[in-house]
Amino acid sequence: MENVGNLQSFRKGVKILDATLRDGGIVNSFYFKDDFVKALYQANVAAGVDIMEFGYKVSKKMFDTTKFGKWKFCDEEDIRAIVGENKTDMLISVMSDVGRVELKEEVIPKKESVIDMYRVATYVHQVPTAIEMIEYCAKMGYKTSCNVMAISKVQESSLKQALEIIAQSPADIMVIVDSYGALYPEQIRPVCDTYLEVAAKYGKQVGIHAHNNQQLAFANTIEACAKGVNYLDGTVCGMGRGAGNAYTEALLGFLKNPKYKMEPVLKFIREYMNPLSKEVKWGYDTAYLLTGIYNVHPYAAIDFIKANREDYEQFIQEIMGVD
Amino acid sequence: MENVGNLQSFRKGVKILDATLRDGGIVNSFYFKDDFVKALYQANVAAGVDIMEFGYKVSKKMFDTTKFGKWKFCDEEDIRAIVGENKTDMLISVMSDVGRVELKEEVIPKKESVIDMYRVATYVHQVPTAIEMIEYCAKMGYKTSCNVMAISKVQESSLKQALEIIAQSPADIMVIVDSYGALYPEQIRPVCDTYLEVAAKYGKQVGIHAHNNQQLAFANTIEACAKGVNYLDGTVCGMGRGAGNAYTEALLGFLKNPKYKMEPVLKFIREYMNPLSKEVKWGYDTAYLLTGIYNVHPYAAIDFIKANREDYEQFIQEIMGVD
Repeated sequence: MENVGNLQSFRKGVKILDATLRDGGIVNSFYFKDDFVKALYQANVAAGVDIMEFGYKVSKKMFDTTKFGKWKFCDEEDIRAIVGENKTDMLISVMSDVGRVELKEEVIPKKESVIDMYRVATYVHQVPTAIEMIEYCAKMGYKTSCNVMAISKVQESSLKQALEIIAQSPADIMVIVDSYGALYPEQIRPVCDTYLEVAAKYGKQVGIHAHNNQQLAFANTIEACAKGVNYLDGTVCGMGRGAGNAYTEALLGFLKNPKYKMEPVLKFIREYMNPLSKEVKWGYDTAYLLTGIYNVHPYAAIDFIKANREDYEQFIQEIMGVD
Repeated sequence: MENVGNLQSFRKGVKILDATLRDGGIVNSFYFKDDFVKALYQANVAAGVDIMEFGYKVSKKMFDTTKFGKWKFCDEEDIRAIVGENKTDMLISVMSDVGRVELKEEVIPKKESVIDMYRVATYVHQVPTAIEMIEYCAKMGYKTSCNVMAISKVQESSLKQALEIIAQSPADIMVIVDSYGALYPEQIRPVCDTYLEVAAKYGKQVGIHAHNNQQLAFANTIEACAKGVNYLDGTVCGMGRGAGNAYTEALLGFLKNPKYKMEPVLKFIREYMNPLSKEVKWGYDTAYLLTGIYNVHPYAAIDFIKANREDYEQFIQEIMGVD
């Protein structure tokens, strides 16, 4: 498929989803202060961001509430304390991992909730369970997306079969997730073609969530956009697990829709992200480059960096060994 | 043009040029210690790097030798103190800016020099002068390249005319230089087509030197490679002016030629680059993102960061004003 659109125009369908609290929360165990979250919400609204993801929605029976901040759980009242009734054009999403939420106890009907969308994160072998969750959330009135993680480890034939099943579920969006930051642009483009082809057949949208292990998160995101992928995940200053994500502010600078404004996010960076970046660490590092190149989960690199290790050559042996 | 080659194979013609001393030297005024330079040289040789750029060759009449380290000048004896006769497969290059070297006094015959290649950096309006320099260096027996800087500011028609002239000079390589880190992959690809088309006509090679303002240096470099660009500039840890460059180690990880080894460069990173990165600062920053987006020289962002400024919104006004 050729580019859809060009650099001087814009496609109305393109949306930015800011996942700073959710993917960034993995860095600081979701301990964001309320003024931080409120300022981010206001910045995103002012910037024209289309969807803000507040965090994960996971079961308090499965995760210890004393070990995580509130955005790991996204209680209705905690979100409302920030957004009130959210009388804005920006949607609110939360993410749930397959099997980590008690649907009937924790997902209330949409008309009682300020949440607009549930994004269900799944590995390819869990897709049938993910679809049960998506069906439940859709029945409760929410928009839904299905985010198949770690696709750089999945054979194309399996991925196609999974996408065919997902596309026949109520999921509104199918999100390409390069969890390991392993894919090069020349690999992302055919992946986009695969997703877009299935999506077109069933009237679905496609999104992308990229990681920056090889400093390709932004490149892969805008290449996907050029192909016709409409839902673009970013995080402010790229804050996210390990090497982090595509930068929301870079996406705002790239997209030509006049509704997007960088300045509110730049103000937020000055007032909140620059100070935060002195307290907690995320973003590109040589160790993340290596897990990206070797196409493995970044947890090994996270441990390597925490341990102040620099023996990269030995690290390569270790990550090749677990594969 | 379609991709030339694929991700599972390699093209023998692809070469890595490590420009750490030259572009990185702009960060620390070329004050690298001898053990650093020697270790980098050994790492590059062991890694299979094809060309190592030692620095600039500029006139000591024009630049104060008390204000710059020796790699701003690249005296023959200083290079020889590191490499001896350079009995390796790795070539040695230096860069000269148009009008900043006294050709007849400072460029000795190749047979007396351990330098293999002169790379001439030029703005598009200086091309005829650059060609005089290239002709002189070629006559003295050196390989040469012509690096047209700041092409994101040059109209395609002017660029094509310049390339036609350069391609008829003795220059062996024409290098795409995205000085401002302003170009997106979908812009780099047609630029590559333009260069490659002219190069094919006259039997020249094409190279690329990218900057990381929008975190696209590596992406643009490997996209160019896929198009048929054979000379890829990198610097270790991306060390270079402002936001820096494509990372040599990422290129080594990407390219499949078995002669390339990452480990020697990883060892160099641990022993030399990680300590250096605590003393001097380079690499991606919000201010560089902005000069990339607004397609202006990074010097404004360098000053902005030096002054510990964070008023990005005002900075945008300033850089739009100078344009």
